[in-house]
This record gives sequence, structure tokens and C-alpha cells, in this order.
Amino acid sequence: MSVCDKIKFNSDGLVPAIIQDKASGRVLMMAWMNRASLEATIATGKTHFWSRSRQKFWMKGESSGHIQTVKDIAFDCDGDTLLIQVEQIGAACHEGYRSCFFRSVTDGGAGDVITEPQLQTPGDIYGKK
Amino acid sequence: MSVCDKIKFNSDGLVPAIIQDKASGRVLMMAWMNRASLEATIATGKTHFWSRSRQKFWMKGESSGHIQTVKDIAFDCDGDTLLIQVEQIGAACHEGYRSCFFRSVTDGGAGDVITEPQLQTPGDIYGKK
Repeated sequence: MSVCDKIKFNSDGLVPAIIQDKASGRVLMMAWMNRASLEATIATGKTHFWSRSRQKFWMKGESSGHIQTVKDIAFDCDGDTLLIQVEQIGAACHEGYRSCFFRSVTDGGAGDVITEPQLQTPGDIYGKK
Repeated sequence: MSVCDKIKFNSDGLVPAIIQDKASGRVLMMAWMNRASLEATIATGKTHFWSRSRQKFWMKGESSGHIQTVKDIAFDCDGDTLLIQVEQIGAACHEGYRSCFFRSVTDGGAGDVITEPQLQTPGDIYGKK
């Protein structure tokens, strides 16, 4: 049985995938996979996702060059969430931060603060429009 | 403006929350929060969630004693995922593992392996039925 058969995709055929930098332990991003993108991720060793906003299969880094090389794929006790260890080239976040989780809550929920440096601007990454 | 106003809850009023052990960097679990559980998490410093299967507000550890004390709450660039750093008492997983992600894919997706020790049995945690 393929491990894909153990994963419980939701009613939209998707499963959330948490992406973690294997070297630093930093959680980089969370994105969604359908079965085809999980199979492509396993087969190629590069992360592939399903974009809910664009309704499109995509490989991380296909536009930015910020490819993720897969080191481990784990799944949780319920089989409905993936945790993928990667080697990340450059910024994982489309806003140019290493991690998408670059803002933390402050002041008992009244505010927030940026917790890491912006490595590049979106213009640097994707080209100015 | 409350930081809760920056979070994009989905059509069910929920947002996924990734829970990470602050000390070790191990991702422990992913669960869902509604606005009330996020507000309770911020206010009390203990993680609270919304159970989709039980349709119930719950505090992590209320049955097991495996409470999570919040050290940081981050949110991603799209405002639709949370990353919460915690101090975890005992096993995060209801199956008695430290992390819910205790199984990893092997053999190019053909199999999987348990990657960490089981600290307790579910019977130990919740009492034998």
C-alpha cells in the first residue's frame, strides 16, 4: 500500500503540509497538497503543492528559484497533516523572509512585531512589474 | 486593533495552529482554533483549540494533563496559519508520543516507520476503559 493511501485528504482533496528547515528547525511555511502534489514530492524530492487561490499545481521555487529539497516526510497520528523536513534555498516566503511566520503577537494580542530580517523584496525575487 | 482581526479564519471560522516545542524545535502537532480559542490561548497562556470531530472548545491537557504553556504566537504572511511555540508537559500526541508526527515515509512512499519512542500508552494517559 502506498503511504498516500494512509493520508486523509479533506473534502477538497487536500492535506496541509508543514515545511520545516531541517538544519535550523525553523518552520518555514504551511501549504496544501493534493494527492498528485504529494506523489510528485515523493517522486522528485522537491516540494510540490496545490494553490487554492490559483487552483493550480505548482513546484515551490518554480518562479523564485527558492526550491525545497525534501529530507523527510512525516505524517501525524490522524493521517491528516504532513510535516516535511527540507533544505531551503533562499527565502521560503514570497515576501522575502526566510520563514512565512515572521510576525509574532505582542502586548497580549494588541499588536505584533517582525521577528526576522527581510532577505529580499518581492521585486527582487519575482522581478519588478 | 486586536491581532485576532488580522487572522483570516476559514469559512468554518477556523485557522490551523502549528504547535512547536520551543526548547527542541520539534513540531508537536497541528490543530484548529476558532476566534474564541485563539483569544483564550492569548489570555491564559495555555493552548485552546476547536475540535472539528467533537465540535467542541477544548484546552490541551484538560483530560491528559499534557498542558502546553505558550511562549510565542506567530502568524504567517497570509494571516491564515499560526505557529505557536510552547513548553509541552509529557506527550503531545493522544497516542502517547512526544510528537504526533512520529511516522515517516520510507521506500519512496511504499512504507513508513516509527521514528520516536512511545512515552505512554493511551490507556496510561486517559485511563483504561
